[in-house]
Amino acid sequence: MAFWGVEIKPGKPHVHQFDDELGRLHVSQATLGAAKSKEKAIVVCNVGDKKPVYLCSLLPRKMETCALNVEFEEYEEVTFSVEGPHSIHLSGFYHGEKPDYEG
Amino acid sequence: MAFWGVEIKPGKPHVHQFDDELGRLHVSQATLGAAKSKEKAIVVCNVGDKKPVYLCSLLPRKMETCALNVEFEEYEEVTFSVEGPHSIHLSGFYHGEKPDYEG
Amino acid sequence: MAFWGVEIKPGKPHVHQFDDELGRLHVSQATLGAAKSKEKAIVVCNVGDKKPVYLCSLLPRKMETCALNVEFEEYEEVTFSVEGPHSIHLSGFYHGEKPDYEG
Amino acid sequence: MAFWGVEIKPGKPHVHQFDDELGRLHVSQATLGAAKSKEKAIVVCNVGDKKPVYLCSLLPRKMETCALNVEFEEYEEVTFSVEGPHSIHLSGFYHGEKPDYEG
Amino acid sequence: MAFWGVEIKPGKPHVHQFDDELGRLHVSQATLGAAKSKEKAIVVCNVGDKKPVYLCSLLPRKMETCALNVEFEEYEEVTFSVEGPHSIHLSGFYHGEKPDYEG
Repeated sequence: MAFWGVEIKPGKPHVHQFDDELGRLHVSQATLGAAKSKEKAIVVCNVGDKKPVYLCSLLPRKMETCALNVEFEEYEEVTFSVEGPHSIHLSGFYHGEKPDYEG
Repeated sequence: MAFWGVEIKPGKPHVHQFDDELGRLHVSQATLGAAKSKEKAIVVCNVGDKKPVYLCSLLPRKMETCALNVEFEEYEEVTFSVEGPHSIHLSGFYHGEKPDYEG
Repeated sequence: MAFWGVEIKPGKPHVHQFDDELGRLHVSQATLGAAKSKEKAIVVCNVGDKKPVYLCSLLPRKMETCALNVEFEEYEEVTFSVEGPHSIHLSGFYHGEKPDYEG
Repeated sequence: MAFWGVEIKPGKPHVHQFDDELGRLHVSQATLGAAKSKEKAIVVCNVGDKKPVYLCSLLPRKMETCALNVEFEEYEEVTFSVEGPHSIHLSGFYHGEKPDYEG
Repeated sequence: MAFWGVEIKPGKPHVHQFDDELGRLHVSQATLGAAKSKEKAIVVCNVGDKKPVYLCSLLPRKMETCALNVEFEEYEEVTFSVEGPHSIHLSGFYHGEKPDYEG
């Protein structure tokens, strides 16, 4: 198990590629980065060629952080991007090579 | 385990059918889709011929995302629909054929 | 494992009785039902003859849904009721006869 | 596993003492009790002679309930108290004598 | 398993060092400490020489507590600090030397 964290900036999607040694990725939390806009910011997730899915929507000065509970261990590319004028920090952890826990 | 995500649009329920290979479905998160209305949007779940149950209620500009923790592995049809003028994105994962974890 | 959902209406408590086949009940989520009042609504839980405990408090137009994480497998009667002029939908699941997971 | 719930009143801390038969205590949820004040209420936790730690902070009419995820199995005394003019209801469960789950 | 709690004060980062006996650290909750400012407060996490990641952002009088779900068992130094004029209380637990649960 190892901590994982990235800052996703507007217009700069983050691509996650499965790695056998690091194992399954668990994404636990999303937090708004610094920005002055009051516009909301949405984390969008693209898995392979499936339709994009909104993972969460954060609101400046109202709800700037939220728990997530999604996991990725597919060999397809997973892309996280932001809609809106903010960056969003995602944090979580890798399960490691041989998880005892398959939840 | 595989990522699962759908966008449920008003008037277009999503039907989930259990699939032995994909295994139990864990629904983790609900996020409001794009829409200009300020009306709330509710995710309603119908399992077989049981009474419909509200899974969550999202409020534009106040609370646009929430964690869920429900799982489905029944052979009956499970229908997710939206009450209100918004689409809602649901995300989660399939446990896969042989879960080690029965929680 | 099987989905569980009930709507608790004001003045109509829901009594949960442990059933060996269904197993332990996990309550995951509470969501406000339809109502025009702005008054808050509280889910109250009575286990046997212990003192009643508030499980959650929902606020119309502010916070209409919340995650819960309580489990029941006692042989005593468990009663869920609502304080306030709203119904509340509870959802969750039964662990089934032989849970591998004791959390 | 057995349901656990207490109401912590201002000025009346609740002392939790580990009991081998009941096992580890999991605290899952905090909910504001009845009170007319708009002041916030904080759950403070004291473990043995360690520094007190705030577990959560609830806001009347804004956020009256929140999920927690803390566990206690130390032989030292654990004291829960409230700062502010409200009582707070805590709920959760005991893991029982022989937990299969060490999370 | 043992309860873990710290108060992170502005300008006074907390350094967490992995300890074999205490085992993996699970951070469960963040709660705003006492302060009169209305400015938000952010928990920042630095793991070794990786980029700092925001773990959560709390808003006085709006959202003063949130659940977290991050775990640390790396041998690199983990530093928690606060951005903003508040202290933040973090709580959670150590898994102990031989966790049965690897989630």
